[in-house]
Amino acid sequence: MYLVEGTITLKLPESSNDVLLKNLYLSCDPYMRNRMSKFDGPEIEGFHAYTPASPLAGIGVAKVVESGNPDYKEGDLVWGITKWEEYSLVPSTQIVFKIEHTDVPLSYYTGILGMPGITAYAGFFEIGSPKKGDNVFVSAASGAVGQLVGQFAKLTGCYVVGSAGSKEKVDLLKSKLGFDEAFNYKEESDLDAALKRYFPEGIDIYFDNVGGKTLDAVLLNLKVHARIPSCGMISQYNLTQHEGVTNLLNLIYKRVRIEGFVVTDYYHLYPKFLEFLLPHIREGKIVYVEDIAEGLENGPAALVGLFSGHNVGKQVVIVAR
Amino acid sequence: MYLVEGTITLKLPESSNDVLLKNLYLSCDPYMRNRMSKFDGPEIEGFHAYTPASPLAGIGVAKVVESGNPDYKEGDLVWGITKWEEYSLVPSTQIVFKIEHTDVPLSYYTGILGMPGITAYAGFFEIGSPKKGDNVFVSAASGAVGQLVGQFAKLTGCYVVGSAGSKEKVDLLKSKLGFDEAFNYKEESDLDAALKRYFPEGIDIYFDNVGGKTLDAVLLNLKVHARIPSCGMISQYNLTQHEGVTNLLNLIYKRVRIEGFVVTDYYHLYPKFLEFLLPHIREGKIVYVEDIAEGLENGPAALVGLFSGHNVGKQVVIVAR
Repeated sequence: MYLVEGTITLKLPESSNDVLLKNLYLSCDPYMRNRMSKFDGPEIEGFHAYTPASPLAGIGVAKVVESGNPDYKEGDLVWGITKWEEYSLVPSTQIVFKIEHTDVPLSYYTGILGMPGITAYAGFFEIGSPKKGDNVFVSAASGAVGQLVGQFAKLTGCYVVGSAGSKEKVDLLKSKLGFDEAFNYKEESDLDAALKRYFPEGIDIYFDNVGGKTLDAVLLNLKVHARIPSCGMISQYNLTQHEGVTNLLNLIYKRVRIEGFVVTDYYHLYPKFLEFLLPHIREGKIVYVEDIAEGLENGPAALVGLFSGHNVGKQVVIVAR
Repeated sequence: MYLVEGTITLKLPESSNDVLLKNLYLSCDPYMRNRMSKFDGPEIEGFHAYTPASPLAGIGVAKVVESGNPDYKEGDLVWGITKWEEYSLVPSTQIVFKIEHTDVPLSYYTGILGMPGITAYAGFFEIGSPKKGDNVFVSAASGAVGQLVGQFAKLTGCYVVGSAGSKEKVDLLKSKLGFDEAFNYKEESDLDAALKRYFPEGIDIYFDNVGGKTLDAVLLNLKVHARIPSCGMISQYNLTQHEGVTNLLNLIYKRVRIEGFVVTDYYHLYPKFLEFLLPHIREGKIVYVEDIAEGLENGPAALVGLFSGHNVGKQVVIVAR
């Protein structure tokens, strides 16, 4: 990634239906790594491989400067797929939602009130099918999605344990985010033993953000009819040769369901999600930890940092306030 | 396994509630291998580890000789969990169903009309959620379960391809069992390429009987929203070190569901299943291939043969006709 400076005219091309955006907050998300490789997966809106020498694209919060689409007007705040630049010209179809509630931090629409928020909501409630008393394990638990899954689990009356990669994150999980227990996976030489310590009776829901060795250890510690919403496998994205998962046989006797999902399939739940979540945020019953990088020039390091666990909480890049 | 001869008195112990059975047909099933190792899975009726120096237990068809339970009487034909011996004394709870229809071969109650039959039915229809036009792949396709899955898929209007381990089996799949295509996985050096040949547009349902390398190749060839009923992983049962599955990342972008299941959870469907299947059998619209070993003394070799693919079709051991 490199920074390119230049001059543009802030004007919508004549008879364009596009929307000219001033970018405010950009979201650093693990899936962006996969767009930097040849991607032979299915067509998902905004999910094709990046074109070298073009700006990165990703989720962001932006303000409409000029609009060729009557649904948006100057001054509207929106979140959706934009580019890593100060101003972007995007098709209006890339806007996911207009922002209606501004009594909460705008940056939240890259996280708790945006894509990672619905991801946690859909993955935990729709795919995880949680019920009171369930034992829930979350990996990458202090991340953009994980910290919400843990709080949703507590709201549901579950016992929830998170794993993360530093003492600071583990402390955060227990002191601020309400997890019952948390551990640093880097300090556990035997993940299976760690899980047996925290889940002597086994796991009902494993919200998987990392895949690989953690998933393999979880497979040894599942309860009957366990559910695994498969949200991400960040441990594998930078590997040329993916780690082999060897304990899948446990799926059968334990009658386990693993289900991969992509948040765009659940955007229709957004209004219901906001209705559920906004009061909890306003009342301080759900909190959210963000890691803010100031300035577009600090974006590349912030993005790369996700893959070594540099960020504490949701990684955001501020382009403008 | 070894053969033990002895003399018993064919008489129910006084005030016993058990049932004395004359065993007729015994079923050779892959899951029995797992009962020969330390099994730390959940308690499933009739599924604990075998006790060395005791008779093997498994599914069988038997005739009631004497009954301490009023639900069964002398002469009743039943199928359920019995032992690998000429006569067995079993708790009546081990009987799964009384056999009501005897215009079909009795041995069928170890296969198409018994446990493998409901396995295929529940796995394909309940977990696979098939619809007309789906592309279906079945491994171990000429086996007790696979040959039925293929025929159920054809009845549903699906395109179905099976893999098996010999030319004889591949021919059987295409000529007798109605599969659209079939291939010998032992002759394919690149399973991914083989699947791309038969499924240029990808797979909607993979009915997994084998796990391991085949599952890994399938993961590279799934359509969006594919389903994988995980029925068995016979390729792994004799391995000390299980093969690693490396392509699970595909579950996410393709939004795939893998669901393990155990047939005992679906026995309540048995009456509905019989009502569906019996007319098809009587009209010759569904056929079933059995591999018969004659005599209890040939049982051990028949059972071991499953794991090298020696059997062609459902492996049955005849104890008595």
